[in-house]
Amino acid sequence: MSTTTTALEDLVRAVRPGGADDDPAAVLAAGAWTALVEPGDGVAGALVATLGAVDALDALRRNAPPSPNPEVRRAFERWAPRVDDGAFARAFRNAAQLGARLLLPGDPDWPGGLADLGLHAPLALWALAPSGPLPALGRSVALVGARSSTAYGDRVTTDAACGLVDRGFGVVSGGAIGIDGVAHRAALASGGLTVAVLAGGLDRLYPAQHVELLHRIARQGVVLSEMPCGARPMAERFLKRNRIIAALSRATVVVEAGARSGATNTAGHAAQLGRPLGAVPGSVYSATSAGTHVLVRDYGAVLVRDAADMAELARDPDEAVMLDGLEALEAPQDLHERRVLEVLAKRPRTVLDLAARAGLSVADTGAALGMLSLGGSAVEGPGGWSRP
Amino acid sequence: MSTTTTALEDLVRAVRPGGADDDPAAVLAAGAWTALVEPGDGVAGALVATLGAVDALDALRRNAPPSPNPEVRRAFERWAPRVDDGAFARAFRNAAQLGARLLLPGDPDWPGGLADLGLHAPLALWALAPSGPLPALGRSVALVGARSSTAYGDRVTTDAACGLVDRGFGVVSGGAIGIDGVAHRAALASGGLTVAVLAGGLDRLYPAQHVELLHRIARQGVVLSEMPCGARPMAERFLKRNRIIAALSRATVVVEAGARSGATNTAGHAAQLGRPLGAVPGSVYSATSAGTHVLVRDYGAVLVRDAADMAELARDPDEAVMLDGLEALEAPQDLHERRVLEVLAKRPRTVLDLAARAGLSVADTGAALGMLSLGGSAVEGPGGWSRP
Repeated sequence: MSTTTTALEDLVRAVRPGGADDDPAAVLAAGAWTALVEPGDGVAGALVATLGAVDALDALRRNAPPSPNPEVRRAFERWAPRVDDGAFARAFRNAAQLGARLLLPGDPDWPGGLADLGLHAPLALWALAPSGPLPALGRSVALVGARSSTAYGDRVTTDAACGLVDRGFGVVSGGAIGIDGVAHRAALASGGLTVAVLAGGLDRLYPAQHVELLHRIARQGVVLSEMPCGARPMAERFLKRNRIIAALSRATVVVEAGARSGATNTAGHAAQLGRPLGAVPGSVYSATSAGTHVLVRDYGAVLVRDAADMAELARDPDEAVMLDGLEALEAPQDLHERRVLEVLAKRPRTVLDLAARAGLSVADTGAALGMLSLGGSAVEGPGGWSRP
Repeated sequence: MSTTTTALEDLVRAVRPGGADDDPAAVLAAGAWTALVEPGDGVAGALVATLGAVDALDALRRNAPPSPNPEVRRAFERWAPRVDDGAFARAFRNAAQLGARLLLPGDPDWPGGLADLGLHAPLALWALAPSGPLPALGRSVALVGARSSTAYGDRVTTDAACGLVDRGFGVVSGGAIGIDGVAHRAALASGGLTVAVLAGGLDRLYPAQHVELLHRIARQGVVLSEMPCGARPMAERFLKRNRIIAALSRATVVVEAGARSGATNTAGHAAQLGRPLGAVPGSVYSATSAGTHVLVRDYGAVLVRDAADMAELARDPDEAVMLDGLEALEAPQDLHERRVLEVLAKRPRTVLDLAARAGLSVADTGAALGMLSLGGSAVEGPGGWSRP
């Protein structure tokens, strides 16, 4: 399938409804980057921040890494197989057919909270939303939790989402079955703003049971993804997606979660971003409250009972959650964490530096740092990451 | 009814089975003081600590306050109507008939944890227990909670008490229906030590539904009261009794409690004593978990899920609970607290001084200080109490 430049520029205009002043090459390059990298790729973040999307893409096309850093070289090797103008064009065409738009970091309606993700912020976001500027997401709470939610968790979520909407908050979640879905539905039913952040492309709505719900959210709220049309929702992308849920929201509340669930991963992102973290208590015999109890006991999450507590948690954006405990309560679970822990020093080191020393990708290093940070074994300061 | 001195000395020996070296006058005076004062009377504590029970009683009989302090004078006026040798003799006789004994602060088996109560420690304790020295109570956890417990709270309490016994802990509680009773029964069923601290005399076992249970505890554990035989269990005595439950235990755990319950009063005593405080989470819709959630959210209680968590909480007796929040979350509820708050200054003042300024008894002042302290409006330092 071939696409002329002119047709491509039409597609660019289609996904940038308010973008009269756009440089089409910049939009195309930003969209291409969403197809080139996996979510949260800090090397891409650094490269695009330094060169801009167009020159960064040009360097990649010429296989000319702008730095001798081996991690940059490895990143170029990782990205090169995805340089495919046909695939970029398909991503734009499918987005245009869906009525999706492409949000760029410089846009007035680019969510400000994403800036806290630094080099791990999405390079662009694909969005399904009513026409006009994207609603402001600055006053939102993330309600997340187990896919295998209980009647109790569903009831808490419903009451919380409705109460948050009544208090003028948007409800951000991940579109999954269980707590996520209940949160979205209750926010919609209350006439409030709800935002679903997906792990795959907007033409791959997932899960199948929620296709109708996601269409409704697209009509009344916002559906977002940092992945382009065509991208499958894969396990790693769900985990990375969680950082966007946390960054979009003033506070993240875990309603129900197993001891090791994706929701506690989102909680880890919230804590890492210094955003307030809340957890709803429940029966000590409920497997789906085991995770929330751990968050309160061991990770400094605030026990929240209802929408009033959650609104209080979200009220002051400067109020950071202090992570309790200076040592990891559990040994690092996987090789990446152990390797990053070994190269962490008292003196701060950048993620790039640590990744190079650990022999890991920047993304894996960032993920490992996130988990280590959650356990108190790594802290981020002005000069980078260090041991506490 | 008259009682000769010789008969009295027989009664003294009866309630002091191991007390061959006792001075009968000292035992009699200590027992008399339990009948003279209401629990936690700090003026009595100071007087007996200064003069000894015998000389303090003698000063009272002669109406010769050893200090011009108006609070001491008021205390003498308060105690004088209860100077009644017939009543003292009846208290000893009834105790002897029950097989109760009188524990004195100098005894080898006097519970060491009570020392932290300072001048508010009991002047003596009446005990029903198997013969021989009182079992050591130094490794105990207080399990307390709502009289109107739910099936959930009863189950948590049963599992916790059994698990604590398995880990070598005694279980202290208040003998009430609801959580207290379940805690005692489960500890007994596990073959462990359990201690019931009552608000009235040992001949007035209360509540009526628990007379048989309390008899079983007396045979297999310990039933304690700072009140002599004949004393009715009155509301104020229940609240003051709670300080003994907290002081006997390395940690206090509230399993279920309404928003304003006696169990949270016990929790306040534990926090005031610097003892670890735990609270069990539950449904946010359960009225009997409302109090435990408040303790976790607002008073720094540790969320505990099971006996393992409670044992961990009780492990290190030096680990004090830091009370969160420097300002009271609620305005002082009653006149006493308001009056004490008014006379608290930046400069520390003694309880006696504050009581005199507030026009309250030392006991009421102490109780008000306890509540104010729980809310963060009063702090105790080397020189006494002050505003934070």
